[in-house]
Amino acid sequence: MIYRYKMIIEYDGTRFQAGWQFQPHQTSVQGALEDALHKTLHEKIRVYGAGRTDKNVHALGQVAHINALCNYKADRILNGINFYLRDSGCIVRSVEAVDYDFHARFSSKSKLYRYCVCYDHICGVFDTGRCWHIHSMIKLDIEHMIEQAKHLVGPNDFTSLCDSSCINEATLRSIESADIYHSGNKIYFDFRAQSFLHKQIRIMVGTLIDIARGHLHDIREIIAAKDRSRAGQTAPGYGLYLVEISYPITS
Amino acid sequence: MIYRYKMIIEYDGTRFQAGWQFQPHQTSVQGALEDALHKTLHEKIRVYGAGRTDKNVHALGQVAHINALCNYKADRILNGINFYLRDSGCIVRSVEAVDYDFHARFSSKSKLYRYCVCYDHICGVFDTGRCWHIHSMIKLDIEHMIEQAKHLVGPNDFTSLCDSSCINEATLRSIESADIYHSGNKIYFDFRAQSFLHKQIRIMVGTLIDIARGHLHDIREIIAAKDRSRAGQTAPGYGLYLVEISYPITS
Repeated sequence: MIYRYKMIIEYDGTRFQAGWQFQPHQTSVQGALEDALHKTLHEKIRVYGAGRTDKNVHALGQVAHINALCNYKADRILNGINFYLRDSGCIVRSVEAVDYDFHARFSSKSKLYRYCVCYDHICGVFDTGRCWHIHSMIKLDIEHMIEQAKHLVGPNDFTSLCDSSCINEATLRSIESADIYHSGNKIYFDFRAQSFLHKQIRIMVGTLIDIARGHLHDIREIIAAKDRSRAGQTAPGYGLYLVEISYPITS
Repeated sequence: MIYRYKMIIEYDGTRFQAGWQFQPHQTSVQGALEDALHKTLHEKIRVYGAGRTDKNVHALGQVAHINALCNYKADRILNGINFYLRDSGCIVRSVEAVDYDFHARFSSKSKLYRYCVCYDHICGVFDTGRCWHIHSMIKLDIEHMIEQAKHLVGPNDFTSLCDSSCINEATLRSIESADIYHSGNKIYFDFRAQSFLHKQIRIMVGTLIDIARGHLHDIREIIAAKDRSRAGQTAPGYGLYLVEISYPITS
């Protein structure tokens, strides 16, 4: 008998040498979780994440599933793993026993990512490594950027707005929502879709900022070109948060 | 000729081995600032802080003054010092030329401190070291605590609510305001006064939490006893922020 559990995970991406995915001789979120599970349950357990976040990228609501040979109480796993994860930069928010057909990645309906920009003359010490600092001397036309972001919503071929490593992949994606809001000295970019291409959000944000600065103009033309070199810079990883992953409601 | 400058400083107290004050063989905020000033201006400059925060205590608006032998542009000091302070956990928010009679500590009219409690089943990775985690399994009567805090306002002998190192000191202080508010999973405690005794805010917060838990009862009796052993625990330093220091408006 195999018992499956769903976990919701929060981490500070800058605290790991690699990103989500296990890498030999480097700290990674997956590696930290598998170590902590091994110490807790004395089983070698693989952690299957819903999304492989890159180096420095944070998560407030990453989801993963695990298979265990014993029918553990969810609270025992939660408390044990958090004990071994203390001070690691990663914490498990919840553990829940789920049906065997639940799959963190393949069952997911949509993902919400948030990108955070600090638009100020100085980036505060509590914001360092948690948002992209853009100096307030740089003039940004935020209203224009909000208008342009609307053209990202819907199905599009995102060849222009993904990492060149996506070459040979299917580059059609459908963005459900793209919301930009300005609060205090922060600008937040919220994107929801079933899935995204590699570095797509960071390139979309970098391109929108280049549009707000007046260095680039029409995002529709950039998309239509299907050419990465027509888009803008890649925003740094430490401004990006995997906020939430939605699953169909099961009865 | 001596030129005096006022600086507003932000720091993450957990990034320094000591607190504000310079200590040999330990990193301190004052030491980091003096090093950065020396590298910037090639002068040995002493930094006079308005309040000597303890180890782990943070600041959003610490104030200090310095004396320099040359008439530097404030922006030159600001940019130079922040260049040398990068990644230190400390940043200077502003530098301003002031009259020679301005004194960061003795001219100050009032100080605002904020204490932050995370009241939840888990303390998130982005809150670790930035608030005191109290598990939500612990029942807190927050309304009662808010009522009790009102008795802290006004002039009082705070012998019961300060560190025992304050023995032989004048222990009369006048608290201008004591506001507690609950927002999301945080409880904030804001205290304003001209000055506070050593560890006074952390002992007031620890005592209020002990009252909210039902372990202690009437703060008026605790104050009247003039006995530290009648009060509650000392809340940890990493939940405390020096938010703002006010000065009389000069024309």
